Amino acid sequence: MKKNSKEETKSKEERYQKALSKIKCVLRKETDRVLMMATISALLNNEFDYFSWVGFYRLTGVRLLSVGPYQGELGCLHITFERGVCGACARTEKTVIVPDVTKFPGHIACDGGTKSEIVIPVFDDRHRLIAVLDIDSRQAAAFDEVDGEYLEKIVKIFQKR
Amino acid sequence: MKKNSKEETKSKEERYQKALSKIKCVLRKETDRVLMMATISALLNNEFDYFSWVGFYRLTGVRLLSVGPYQGELGCLHITFERGVCGACARTEKTVIVPDVTKFPGHIACDGGTKSEIVIPVFDDRHRLIAVLDIDSRQAAAFDEVDGEYLEKIVKIFQKR
Repeated sequence: MKKNSKEETKSKEERYQKALSKIKCVLRKETDRVLMMATISALLNNEFDYFSWVGFYRLTGVRLLSVGPYQGELGCLHITFERGVCGACARTEKTVIVPDVTKFPGHIACDGGTKSEIVIPVFDDRHRLIAVLDIDSRQAAAFDEVDGEYLEKIVKIFQKR
Repeated sequence: MKKNSKEETKSKEERYQKALSKIKCVLRKETDRVLMMATISALLNNEFDYFSWVGFYRLTGVRLLSVGPYQGELGCLHITFERGVCGACARTEKTVIVPDVTKFPGHIACDGGTKSEIVIPVFDDRHRLIAVLDIDSRQAAAFDEVDGEYLEKIVKIFQKR
């Protein structure tokens, strides 16, 4: 898909502010989780050139995550809580930032081109884990605390529905 | 997202055969509809250069479709059975091929760049409509009976689950 090539001079914070505002506006009346996840994936994918894969793994069983909605090439279908960066995020219920995926124990190589990754836990209105938001980049160390802070703000939308 | 630029000489039929085989293989044991829709969207998007948007509108209410999963830029969130090409497909439960969207009465312009569109009805094991598969192209008259035939074969996977 085409990426947004305009406004290259915008800072990461400015891009996230824009994405956060747009997501809040577009989803202000929405409650369907699949629609919300698909929309967030599309808007983030469009805004950030350094995202190579962006989407959700939903909690679909006991300590089991299943893929979708997402934007990017074919993802792993299922991930247990024991495996990879998504599993670590689901287990700990904390954001996980991995600057170099080759150094992460048990990393799942869905896309051999992925160099760094961030995974954010997604909770419902009772603070129960319902999914994780997983973003990969083909750039090394693409993600930092700014990504973590804004992505946590974005997924808070699921706690208000 | 990067599109498959290899094997440019393959015919449309060969590409669909490849996509159909891969989808059947990858999803052979799967039953989660969101996972299946996300996977089909990713594999079709990766295989076909002339698809600009590919994804599902799920039946979520009385004569109401809601977006996701999909690959591409922000889609319309909800479409009633009365509106556009997706609505026409849902109403008639037949594949609709539109060579020129500007000539389709009530066409919804989610992406102004879309020139042609195909929409396929998706049924469950009791032949009840559960969704439509919507594909847009920025090429005029991109879709023909070959697309219709193979896409109908692909969505038959939901009737077997």
